Amino acid sequence: MVRIGIIGYGNLGRGVECAVKQNEDTELVAVFTRRDPQTVKILTPGATVASVADVADWKDKIDVMIICGGSATDLPKQTPEYAKLFNVVDSFDTHARIPEHFANVDAAAKAAGKVALISCGWDPGMFSLNRLYANCILPDGKDYTFWGKGVSQGHSDAIRRVPGVKNGKQYTIPVESALEAVRSGANPELTTRQKHVRECFVVLEEGADPAAVENAIKTMPNYFADYDTTVHFISEEELERDHAGIPHGGFVIRSGKTGWNGENKHVIEYSLKLDSNPEFTSSVIVAYARAVARLSAEGVSGCKTVFDIAPAYLSPLSGEEIRAHLL
Amino acid sequence: MVRIGIIGYGNLGRGVECAVKQNEDTELVAVFTRRDPQTVKILTPGATVASVADVADWKDKIDVMIICGGSATDLPKQTPEYAKLFNVVDSFDTHARIPEHFANVDAAAKAAGKVALISCGWDPGMFSLNRLYANCILPDGKDYTFWGKGVSQGHSDAIRRVPGVKNGKQYTIPVESALEAVRSGANPELTTRQKHVRECFVVLEEGADPAAVENAIKTMPNYFADYDTTVHFISEEELERDHAGIPHGGFVIRSGKTGWNGENKHVIEYSLKLDSNPEFTSSVIVAYARAVARLSAEGVSGCKTVFDIAPAYLSPLSGEEIRAHLL
Repeated sequence: MVRIGIIGYGNLGRGVECAVKQNEDTELVAVFTRRDPQTVKILTPGATVASVADVADWKDKIDVMIICGGSATDLPKQTPEYAKLFNVVDSFDTHARIPEHFANVDAAAKAAGKVALISCGWDPGMFSLNRLYANCILPDGKDYTFWGKGVSQGHSDAIRRVPGVKNGKQYTIPVESALEAVRSGANPELTTRQKHVRECFVVLEEGADPAAVENAIKTMPNYFADYDTTVHFISEEELERDHAGIPHGGFVIRSGKTGWNGENKHVIEYSLKLDSNPEFTSSVIVAYARAVARLSAEGVSGCKTVFDIAPAYLSPLSGEEIRAHLL
Repeated sequence: MVRIGIIGYGNLGRGVECAVKQNEDTELVAVFTRRDPQTVKILTPGATVASVADVADWKDKIDVMIICGGSATDLPKQTPEYAKLFNVVDSFDTHARIPEHFANVDAAAKAAGKVALISCGWDPGMFSLNRLYANCILPDGKDYTFWGKGVSQGHSDAIRRVPGVKNGKQYTIPVESALEAVRSGANPELTTRQKHVRECFVVLEEGADPAAVENAIKTMPNYFADYDTTVHFISEEELERDHAGIPHGGFVIRSGKTGWNGENKHVIEYSLKLDSNPEFTSSVIVAYARAVARLSAEGVSGCKTVFDIAPAYLSPLSGEEIRAHLL
């Protein structure tokens, strides 16, 4: 049994709890929270809710700690800190800051003799793996990543900061014609605007001016100005009824050439269609937690990414079983 | 530089030669043939063509030997034999006999202190990897593999053995409605007939009876009887003009559920669209040859599959580079 701890009980922490339940060789030992533990109700019978302040007491009772904080401010501090006490997994997703995060976590994990896996999930995570494999197979080629259709938390937050907006949700949607052009192997050059459109569902505050809100959203730099954006005004009831989910997904495509003179084209495509972004991310994390426990048992230490872990480590099955049934 | 040797110079061997050219850190040293080496012309300036009988002389001049024989009779003998002298990669694809082949190759490679990678390519190979990853992420789910549209060598051979057939080619084609049902997350139960159709292009011998040939093909056990099969009669010129390529591809899809009560559905899909089956297979093999050379340099020995090799080993880039650019 791999004994799992969770730090942070939001959407991702709850997703990890559900994924642990689905895997017969993993067990949830405790959830650690910054809130008053009395106020946090979890689903798993027998698991403890404890204060994150007491996490060191659990040093020998947990094989892998899954850190479910945010990438902006939580994980850069938490992951190196908890890697001193536990094998850890995080889902750090600020791509530009991965090298720095890796270095900090690696130093802490190596000093403590622990294994730390960072940036686990689907992007970074499964999408990264597919970019790597496809690049190695087709060195003469071009990569494309499309996201959606799905809810972007960052863009939904940006909408909600616009004056006059009471609530809102934003969907990122890949442009079908761009996907088709990429799949044809034509290796098109695509602008930001050509790859994705943004669709917003907005609940206005009483008395707000729809035209002003729509303009403020559509012209917002970085978030919306470079995209074709649609704004729909709906009621709070409609938002709750039709937009409560957190779906996401996307496509990683590489097209390239082989042959003595590059005469043959190939297209490799990986795609995800997810009803629940946090639950899928959690499912990837729990499979990798199994790998982390095994690596730790082998005496490995330091910071790892999905690139460093042989696929067989993710499976509860033996080498013989996976060769017989999945190869 | 990874010094590569090729045993067997058919479609796959030629594909390996082209892939080696595309990878700046690999170099083709020699091609070994059962034919008279004088009669075999290769494309790579500076590489040698030698008799397979002299392969032992090249023991210290080749880092990884790529064995391009057939799975039915060549590889079960060749891979264990050459693993005594070289690190090797093969593309053994008789799924049912993989456990036995693995055991034979593992014993030979371990005794010689060599690394041997078997069953490398796309199925087995990249499709296997995607089955494994998807199974680990979604334990509560169902796997589907579809092949095509592409040329099946085995089925084309079967057509050509029918009396009255001068030449022929067979395409395996996935049924679009079955693919759509799987992508919807409905987890359908699909029969053999519901998953693929078979399309045959046949050149008749002078005086042969088309109706008899068509019936012989469509009722052939194992190959065609369980499928909806279409037979087109064409001229030798049309066959050469329109059906000279060796395209292939396919889809690996897993759909599954997450959530405390399995309330959320997810679909993971990996697909390949290949102009040249042997050149793509070769491209996978050469990326893994790089990994094999590295594992050997680390002192690893024994038989491996794609499941056992961390993705980072496939890339010519450093850990820092892949984390910065592909994660």
